[in-house]
Amino acid sequence: MAILFQGADKALGKDEVGLSEAAWQLLHASEGEWVTISHPPAVTSMGFVRSRIFGTTLEAAAFDSIVQDVVAGRYSDVQLAAFLTAGSALPLTDDETVALTSAMARAGEQLGWNRDVIDKHSVGGLPGNRTTPIVVAIAAAAGLTIPKTSSRAITSPAGTADAMETVTRVDLDIDAIRRVVDAEGGCLAWGGALNLSPADDIFIGVERQLDIDPEGQLIASVLSKKIAAGIQKLVLDIPVGPTAKVRSAAAGQRLAMRMRDVASHFGLETVTVISDGSQPVGRAIGPALEMRDVLAVLRCDTNAPIDLRLRALAVAAAVLELGGAAAPERGTARAEELLISGAAYQKFEKICLAQGGFREPIVASLKRVLTSDRSGRVTEIDNRKIARIAKFAGAPGDAGAGLLLDVHIGDEVSAGQPMMTLYADTPSELAYAMNYAESVDLAISLAP
Amino acid sequence: MAILFQGADKALGKDEVGLSEAAWQLLHASEGEWVTISHPPAVTSMGFVRSRIFGTTLEAAAFDSIVQDVVAGRYSDVQLAAFLTAGSALPLTDDETVALTSAMARAGEQLGWNRDVIDKHSVGGLPGNRTTPIVVAIAAAAGLTIPKTSSRAITSPAGTADAMETVTRVDLDIDAIRRVVDAEGGCLAWGGALNLSPADDIFIGVERQLDIDPEGQLIASVLSKKIAAGIQKLVLDIPVGPTAKVRSAAAGQRLAMRMRDVASHFGLETVTVISDGSQPVGRAIGPALEMRDVLAVLRCDTNAPIDLRLRALAVAAAVLELGGAAAPERGTARAEELLISGAAYQKFEKICLAQGGFREPIVASLKRVLTSDRSGRVTEIDNRKIARIAKFAGAPGDAGAGLLLDVHIGDEVSAGQPMMTLYADTPSELAYAMNYAESVDLAISLAP
Repeated sequence: MAILFQGADKALGKDEVGLSEAAWQLLHASEGEWVTISHPPAVTSMGFVRSRIFGTTLEAAAFDSIVQDVVAGRYSDVQLAAFLTAGSALPLTDDETVALTSAMARAGEQLGWNRDVIDKHSVGGLPGNRTTPIVVAIAAAAGLTIPKTSSRAITSPAGTADAMETVTRVDLDIDAIRRVVDAEGGCLAWGGALNLSPADDIFIGVERQLDIDPEGQLIASVLSKKIAAGIQKLVLDIPVGPTAKVRSAAAGQRLAMRMRDVASHFGLETVTVISDGSQPVGRAIGPALEMRDVLAVLRCDTNAPIDLRLRALAVAAAVLELGGAAAPERGTARAEELLISGAAYQKFEKICLAQGGFREPIVASLKRVLTSDRSGRVTEIDNRKIARIAKFAGAPGDAGAGLLLDVHIGDEVSAGQPMMTLYADTPSELAYAMNYAESVDLAISLAP
Repeated sequence: MAILFQGADKALGKDEVGLSEAAWQLLHASEGEWVTISHPPAVTSMGFVRSRIFGTTLEAAAFDSIVQDVVAGRYSDVQLAAFLTAGSALPLTDDETVALTSAMARAGEQLGWNRDVIDKHSVGGLPGNRTTPIVVAIAAAAGLTIPKTSSRAITSPAGTADAMETVTRVDLDIDAIRRVVDAEGGCLAWGGALNLSPADDIFIGVERQLDIDPEGQLIASVLSKKIAAGIQKLVLDIPVGPTAKVRSAAAGQRLAMRMRDVASHFGLETVTVISDGSQPVGRAIGPALEMRDVLAVLRCDTNAPIDLRLRALAVAAAVLELGGAAAPERGTARAEELLISGAAYQKFEKICLAQGGFREPIVASLKRVLTSDRSGRVTEIDNRKIARIAKFAGAPGDAGAGLLLDVHIGDEVSAGQPMMTLYADTPSELAYAMNYAESVDLAISLAP
């Protein structure tokens, strides 16, 4: 499937076509060969999309056929936008969400494990919420099997895969993942090369352009990847806050219930943890900076961010209890024990070594401090604006770039006091991020 | 606004950019100049589109801001698809339809006339329904002012502008149109160069890709162009049939009522004519072939298609009555009089001469007859499949290509009898169309 350009110049003679480098390789073409070009066949499943747009609820077979066509690359972005918008304007029913999840889970690779495996997932939208490496280290140290694969950042300044890449190798194939998990009980790899629920990545690309994330598709997105990865038990962290992905406690409870219901159709036992998403977690935003916070928690450093430590322990407790490595109500104590004893940090190092080695994360060499222009008490921190400042500084492309927050909600600030420290690889990026941070309206709100 | 490609080869040095020919001209750039490249500003009106997706009804100011951004080229096709899909899944209210129509009408050129002007429009979807040249000739001959601009074919095998172009020049600018209308009372020009309701053309491009045509947008599309063109009175032909754009009498009545209601907000007096859309009109499909049918009606030839003649007279009658050129109930008689006396044909010739000359339409030189493989009575003719056969034969790009239908609904056909005659410029197009016509399931249905 390709775009055909018609040229009016003399580069091609009559009945001649030129191919792109990619097409030469894909077709194994050779100079002088005959090619036949035709329109792609009409995408028959678009008929289902059109019915859905005009209010018809779809059967499972319709979702199968839509997802298969999407994965085969037969949908244009315009058609994908219509499908996703229809599912936002007229939300997917529970049955439709199960059907879409099932179709997406079966449309790519599907992994199997010879023992029970557990996983954790965060719905996201909260900068600095890098609990995953800590939770995986604790769970694997407790003897559970947790083959964790993560994505790189899509719209955020860092994904878990980006952060882990600052200390070890993450682009493992399925054989390498099995080897690491067999040896250490867990891994912290990038999931992008595994082709699990490939429709998800295609949908996300268009959702990002529209800046919409409809609930039915969000559920299918998260669960189809877990089902395809062969997970049996899942702890789901749902941060709730005015600038997080989930905006109210009611919406969080509702999403948690729908997630558990849909997951149960696939024998995926799910526990949800609703957490505070009102401000960034820890101090650091950006791959290497966040990894430094993670290591501080794992090493029980005295300057480790207390909120990151507590959030990681809460999720780890749920994982240990759900996985049977701790009795009910005993998860937190057991998780803390594994952290304080150094067992979790040792396990983390071993996982890194099994994945290809361990190195300390390197933060960017240039930094600049943003100070407050007045006095007051911090009342709100806008997750989205903070994330954008870190991105303008170069994160996640420049793994060492980002920012450190110097204040949290409730802090008293006086004029001239540091609010955040920006890190960047180049003076121009530093200036760009600083300029945005200074001009942006109320990334950090102060009340007199 | 442009797409930025990053290249890895040696064609460009560090801090060098290459421009496309179009960009060179647009920017009046010269070799060695400094260019600054930045992301386009976020399209703020997409916030309204997102609210609309999630069920909020929009105010007039929101539609103004969306349409202005669309016309300025700030919407990607993906964003346009989301806007159009949202208006299909959650149909536009009456107030929203008025607001969208108003925003679209004001977003481009707006014409004014120093006298009352009238127009006709057909909702379309019916191959061969080429009444416009006949209606304009009759109305202008009756002394009305009818500055008719038409589109070229978008998804059909011929638009009125394509058909008219086989006998005269149609790409007139606004001054030429005024000159022709001042002299002859009417014109039959292409509207594409006038920038009337430019948002419409942008929306239609995406609707075509999705094959959707939501009612609210259809109303805004038709009426915004008429309002921008300064029309005060409008006759609207709505063909209804199982394979026409409007599928049922109820849907036709409903659309007619909504059209009249919305039009009345703009002081546009509208009369609707619901007509039979169960099969193609006349015999011919394709620009030159249809024009030959039109000329046969205007010249009162004995072989003129009777159905095309009757439909044109019905619409012309409504135009004469609405425009005050005939008393109520007397429109048909007056229209027939102008046709039979030759006054309409003389007016048509004069309009063509004023537009740049008149020539006879030239049909394609190659033809092939498709015969029936069995006997039976014609029960249905699929407008869409017939249109596709004509398009595969080369219409409208090849103005002489298309087909002539040899049968209509109700005709008795015996095996081996001609069903249609295909016309094409090249043997390969003739074979391609013939192959599709032979393989297509029931473009013409026969009952034993």
